Amino acid sequence: MTGTQVRLGRLFNPVSGRSFVTAFDHGTNLKVPAAAGRPLDLLAKIVEGAPDGVLLGPGMLRAGAHLFAHRGAPVPVLRADWTVIEDAWKRDSGEHYKVMLSPNEALALGAGAICMYLIMGPAQGATFADNVEQVARASQEAHRVGLPLIVEATLWGTRHTDKKNPEALQHACRMAYELGADAIKTEYTGDPGTMREIIDSVAVPVLTLGGAEGARDDVIRAAKDAVGAGAKGLIFGRNVWNTPDPVGTSRELAAIVHGDL
Amino acid sequence: MTGTQVRLGRLFNPVSGRSFVTAFDHGTNLKVPAAAGRPLDLLAKIVEGAPDGVLLGPGMLRAGAHLFAHRGAPVPVLRADWTVIEDAWKRDSGEHYKVMLSPNEALALGAGAICMYLIMGPAQGATFADNVEQVARASQEAHRVGLPLIVEATLWGTRHTDKKNPEALQHACRMAYELGADAIKTEYTGDPGTMREIIDSVAVPVLTLGGAEGARDDVIRAAKDAVGAGAKGLIFGRNVWNTPDPVGTSRELAAIVHGDL
Amino acid sequence: MTGTQVRLGRLFNPVSGRSFVTAFDHGTNLKVPAAAGRPLDLLAKIVEGAPDGVLLGPGMLRAGAHLFAHRGAPVPVLRADWTVIEDAWKRDSGEHYKVMLSPNEALALGAGAICMYLIMGPAQGATFADNVEQVARASQEAHRVGLPLIVEATLWGTRHTDKKNPEALQHACRMAYELGADAIKTEYTGDPGTMREIIDSVAVPVLTLGGAEGARDDVIRAAKDAVGAGAKGLIFGRNVWNTPDPVGTSRELAAIVHGDL
Amino acid sequence: MTGTQVRLGRLFNPVSGRSFVTAFDHGTNLKVPAAAGRPLDLLAKIVEGAPDGVLLGPGMLRAGAHLFAHRGAPVPVLRADWTVIEDAWKRDSGEHYKVMLSPNEALALGAGAICMYLIMGPAQGATFADNVEQVARASQEAHRVGLPLIVEATLWGTRHTDKKNPEALQHACRMAYELGADAIKTEYTGDPGTMREIIDSVAVPVLTLGGAEGARDDVIRAAKDAVGAGAKGLIFGRNVWNTPDPVGTSRELAAIVHGDL
Amino acid sequence: MTGTQVRLGRLFNPVSGRSFVTAFDHGTNLKVPAAAGRPLDLLAKIVEGAPDGVLLGPGMLRAGAHLFAHRGAPVPVLRADWTVIEDAWKRDSGEHYKVMLSPNEALALGAGAICMYLIMGPAQGATFADNVEQVARASQEAHRVGLPLIVEATLWGTRHTDKKNPEALQHACRMAYELGADAIKTEYTGDPGTMREIIDSVAVPVLTLGGAEGARDDVIRAAKDAVGAGAKGLIFGRNVWNTPDPVGTSRELAAIVHGDL
Repeated sequence: MTGTQVRLGRLFNPVSGRSFVTAFDHGTNLKVPAAAGRPLDLLAKIVEGAPDGVLLGPGMLRAGAHLFAHRGAPVPVLRADWTVIEDAWKRDSGEHYKVMLSPNEALALGAGAICMYLIMGPAQGATFADNVEQVARASQEAHRVGLPLIVEATLWGTRHTDKKNPEALQHACRMAYELGADAIKTEYTGDPGTMREIIDSVAVPVLTLGGAEGARDDVIRAAKDAVGAGAKGLIFGRNVWNTPDPVGTSRELAAIVHGDL
Repeated sequence: MTGTQVRLGRLFNPVSGRSFVTAFDHGTNLKVPAAAGRPLDLLAKIVEGAPDGVLLGPGMLRAGAHLFAHRGAPVPVLRADWTVIEDAWKRDSGEHYKVMLSPNEALALGAGAICMYLIMGPAQGATFADNVEQVARASQEAHRVGLPLIVEATLWGTRHTDKKNPEALQHACRMAYELGADAIKTEYTGDPGTMREIIDSVAVPVLTLGGAEGARDDVIRAAKDAVGAGAKGLIFGRNVWNTPDPVGTSRELAAIVHGDL
Repeated sequence: MTGTQVRLGRLFNPVSGRSFVTAFDHGTNLKVPAAAGRPLDLLAKIVEGAPDGVLLGPGMLRAGAHLFAHRGAPVPVLRADWTVIEDAWKRDSGEHYKVMLSPNEALALGAGAICMYLIMGPAQGATFADNVEQVARASQEAHRVGLPLIVEATLWGTRHTDKKNPEALQHACRMAYELGADAIKTEYTGDPGTMREIIDSVAVPVLTLGGAEGARDDVIRAAKDAVGAGAKGLIFGRNVWNTPDPVGTSRELAAIVHGDL
Repeated sequence: MTGTQVRLGRLFNPVSGRSFVTAFDHGTNLKVPAAAGRPLDLLAKIVEGAPDGVLLGPGMLRAGAHLFAHRGAPVPVLRADWTVIEDAWKRDSGEHYKVMLSPNEALALGAGAICMYLIMGPAQGATFADNVEQVARASQEAHRVGLPLIVEATLWGTRHTDKKNPEALQHACRMAYELGADAIKTEYTGDPGTMREIIDSVAVPVLTLGGAEGARDDVIRAAKDAVGAGAKGLIFGRNVWNTPDPVGTSRELAAIVHGDL
Repeated sequence: MTGTQVRLGRLFNPVSGRSFVTAFDHGTNLKVPAAAGRPLDLLAKIVEGAPDGVLLGPGMLRAGAHLFAHRGAPVPVLRADWTVIEDAWKRDSGEHYKVMLSPNEALALGAGAICMYLIMGPAQGATFADNVEQVARASQEAHRVGLPLIVEATLWGTRHTDKKNPEALQHACRMAYELGADAIKTEYTGDPGTMREIIDSVAVPVLTLGGAEGARDDVIRAAKDAVGAGAKGLIFGRNVWNTPDPVGTSRELAAIVHGDL
């Protein structure tokens, strides 16, 4: 067992075998409005919600490092790349993919894992090919330095109109696994049956993402169904921190993840 | 606390907690007419004006290094990248972004900080994506070698017609922060309320820029209002050195920055 | 705040501000008799005792990595150097000091911190000078890669007959601090007054070591007195794992460390 | 002019052309007794005394970095090597010389200069030859990365009984200069005439050291005489911080250094 | 699981879980008389004996590489260090320990594992300390490049008169394990009870060595007893290749190793 595997394991609860991670990396490439509040105030609430990990950008980790510097604090998971996510922005400026930092640099910042996108279906095939190369190479470096790589496999490319198409998501997740992902973050298909097929298609843990804000009941149901389908956890962002009670929401979702099914 | 943080702190007055920096990097990408005078004569006046730092290009720092080589001299802040700023030039030749020097190279030249652009809205999305990547990677290297990175977040891309749009500036500043800026240089929105929202959106110091020459009263008012809104300082260029009395203007602005509000 | 500081913080309880670490690195340079039991069985008990960290050698971490690979597991702290500790062995073969692995290698193995000796008073001054150099250089690399260095400052050199001489221990701890230790492991002097003086002589956390097996009451008293004198924790080995009930002993000592004084 | 020269200049007052530096690196290799007080309390007083620079070890700079992180703060000068200074210790353990950190590492910690010993006359010629090599090589690296190297040229080797022998000191200082020192720290010979000869023997600034605590009047006289003889400043330690009023003493010595002669 | 573990596993039979290795590295430091025959002829017979691995020196592997270049061939295990073994030679020239090649170099030669000594009790303590350092460092490099390290833990130092002292062998094996051995080669104590204690003291496979030629029945009995005591295999040399029928002897020993107990 290597440092990579030790650090991956530290994201997962030993009893449930699952992990609840709050994503707060949106400011790297999405508009986080001023109304969302001061970033460190919000980060403090996220940490108070006691997730197993927090996904965030390098600047946020630097400024908020003290929130992770105690026994029992969530594991800081660094967003290591950048892409265009908003549809309007893509229409204006096209689809792009860039790496922000290497596994070695993430480790030096105190990260316990990194997360990188694998986005199927951008208009330009070269964009996807570059994405594949960057993920594959980062996986090699991550293993050499002892850091796990979570690959966020999605259908966000403009060639895909159905962002939750089970067959295409299975394709994306399988590719992420084959390239060297230590864990996969992907969409919940909306259906336990197809979700289980995706999970069974790879031999690493799968965590589902939350995406844009949904109705509370829908979010809870999706969380339960994903875990019921075999997901090893959730990585939820706006459905945690952009709710009236981020601390309570976080604890509720964590209870779903770690509770009896 | 790292070398990066030590050097960042040395730009800020311990009593006011703020910084006044004179920008004199215009010659790297703007036309500075011969009438502006000999560069080292002007640089000497800028230093005589006793700012906390001077932003300048690598050639200017080499030629004028003696002006920074004494106890109490302003901190030399190196412009580390290059872009097209003038509208006519952009129309003729397009929008481009290039890195001139690395943090390590800036440190070897005696710099106490570097400044890089993050320009939202160029016509080509690839230009912006490259800008993001260069800033993110420079941030990593800057921290490794112990140098702070000031990111100048602007709406200078031709897609933006309102260069002071508060919502778009907030987006730009938040992205600069998330990518790893140690401090941010940006436009004053013209309104203390929206300026404060921008400042509250990031967890690093924000300094406002001066831009093109304005009427003396307007410049003073903008300086006061920005600081009143929570800006940790000013980085003013032409409104200092391209005035009839650069030394006096510098001292007046510094007094605003460091004075009681 | 750097990765080094984030990882150092993760050893300390946020409420008590202190840390209880079990040392199990004895097999690297002391005789651990077969009667002590299978190494992984004992390591499992040590982990069950719920310390904040476990100090161990590289081979033990590799073989027992699964015990550290879950949320809430103790932080693995790697012993990075080797020396002769037993008096009889020193008399036979002299005093020697060698480095086993670098901070970068420790990080790749999954370590959250490393521990190195600074042993005052070996017969050969060159041995000590080499020890100083290795600790100083490792401190630099540790900070570059984001790992904290705990320096174990002792009087184990044969020139020192009183291994708990307060003045000499203060000298050793101060030197460890000056060379760049992020935390210090040292002897409890046996007296709260002198212990407090040592702790006040450095600006990093001090944890006291347990040493050879003692009577249960003496061990408990030394633990309480050290914490009362300002120690930020304990790093106890044989007085934990070489007792009839390692799990219970560990919990009792942890309660002392984290309890109200 | 390079970064090395810019940073060297920033240690010197532009009006007097001289520099007053407080040395507080004693804990790296001398016994600093607990009675001297908490290290950061003392460091805060040293900074309050407003010297142009403070010489200190890497651990002290890390822990006290905030004291240097503001405009106008003294320049942190890092002690980059280690040696045995006390006579009793030399007799016991011999004379040793080791490098603690490289110029590049010093820069990453926020240093504005480094200081290294050049100690003439150790019992073993190989020790001196190694010292020469380390200083010469560090000078090369320091210039490449933009950091000035102050060489502390002394007669502390046991072969020298008269530690202030003018001819031998001139030999040491000339060698330091020839090897690449950007400034020299050395003994005051006790006599302005010989001191001036030494200063005239080199083409870089010479600063005199304070050494062990002396009577107040003697210290003041030595400071005045050294500056009168052409010294570009003082680097005084125990005669500042180990006095009843470190802040007042520092200011008094600074006034001598920067005052009219 | 890393490359190191994959390659280590390939030495072991999946049914028995054990390994039989023939050692033929004697020429690196022992006198192999001309009467032993042409080296490649003997190596061909060793391979014909179908062991799971063959331990040999770098020159032997280069010249005989073709014997290992087919599916099902034994795994080449490279001897990576050198020492003096013969008593007469030690008396004449002292005890020495040197590394011949690095794990990276072994991999480039086609090795599936490397073997290094850890020899307790040489007359000079510095020799042992250097041995410890070399083994520890090689273990780090071996894991980085994906090669398993077998440490041959023995009491061959002249301070040990009883080369099979169980307590001392347990000490040696435990140290080898703690330093990072992936498997251990050591003496059979001559007694299953003490052998089992040694095996239980480490958490990696233990293989027993054959040593000097013995009577056939003694060799067979030692092999059976060692495996019965829990040894995961044998590494036998002269008792294989220096017998009248190397092929038959090899097959007989392999049958013991892999047979039902």
